[in-house]
Amino acid sequence: MQLPWASWITIVTLLMYFWVIANVGRARGKYQVKAPSVDGPPEFLRSLRVQINTSEQLIFFLPALWLCAYWWSDQVAALGGALWIVGRVVYALAYYRDAAKRSAGFGIATLASIGLLLGAVYGLIR
Amino acid sequence: MQLPWASWITIVTLLMYFWVIANVGRARGKYQVKAPSVDGPPEFLRSLRVQINTSEQLIFFLPALWLCAYWWSDQVAALGGALWIVGRVVYALAYYRDAAKRSAGFGIATLASIGLLLGAVYGLIR
Amino acid sequence: MQLPWASWITIVTLLMYFWVIANVGRARGKYQVKAPSVDGPPEFLRSLRVQINTSEQLIFFLPALWLCAYWWSDQVAALGGALWIVGRVVYALAYYRDAAKRSAGFGIATLASIGLLLGAVYGLIR
Repeated sequence: MQLPWASWITIVTLLMYFWVIANVGRARGKYQVKAPSVDGPPEFLRSLRVQINTSEQLIFFLPALWLCAYWWSDQVAALGGALWIVGRVVYALAYYRDAAKRSAGFGIATLASIGLLLGAVYGLIR
Repeated sequence: MQLPWASWITIVTLLMYFWVIANVGRARGKYQVKAPSVDGPPEFLRSLRVQINTSEQLIFFLPALWLCAYWWSDQVAALGGALWIVGRVVYALAYYRDAAKRSAGFGIATLASIGLLLGAVYGLIR
Repeated sequence: MQLPWASWITIVTLLMYFWVIANVGRARGKYQVKAPSVDGPPEFLRSLRVQINTSEQLIFFLPALWLCAYWWSDQVAALGGALWIVGRVVYALAYYRDAAKRSAGFGIATLASIGLLLGAVYGLIR
């Protein structure tokens, strides 16, 4: 069985993740945070937290995406995946400005992740 | 080839991981640790360390689980996976109370992970 | 479709990752950094940063490796994967001595990761 839609969503996810990682590198240079330190001004810490949180959520999202795609529907999973990516971009852009504004994007992406997991369970049971 | 057992183990793993992440969110609220800070009382730090360590181990475990399931046996892999989940829950519950008590659960899960990797190698070679 | 080459590369990757994790455990003992603390002398911090950065990059690398292997070529993906592992080992060994020397290995591994992602896109399009 081929799952091109989940594959494309994974590729876009990795591009988004690459962007988030590059933002930490840029902030490290701009705010002169020398490795191995990860302490710096709030602007640096926010970009770091966005990256760490994206990593954490990514390792929940990708298995859920693929299980949903495989056991239920490649296209339904891709829809959930697209929603997750949108939520994570909204989260990152909001968090970069103000940590208190991060909830909306986080909530969207979490709903998408849970939906994908439920979709996988549904596909496995039927 | 369908691998329903590894799929179910992955779903339970994600649920366990979700629980560990939710515990950090709860601790963040309870101990008033404001993002982007990740510094706080030991209770908060312990819940954070459990989550971080779970993420670290998860990205070793899931590939090992699936390689073992694919190349050797879906059911053997699921047994190793179930042991890993038990080990990680024991680890988390112990660590939440006392960091010094975290070794037993950690050891069980690490043995399970190494067993899965060896199982994958065995399946690939034969 | 069987992908033994990507499987072997994944196994070697997990062994490399295990080595990096074990180095943090050893440094924790050597420099008496008691959990849940992750603060300590620069030697400890460097081994910790190597592990964290390896985790971050691993979750980009593995999906890119498998998408490239599946959609384009198992062997081409394995070549990119071998380059990634070499880059990460060079990175780790350099970073353990001096954080300022980490760029070369990091650059090699990042090029390999981007190459694998482009390979996946190429395979999906054609």
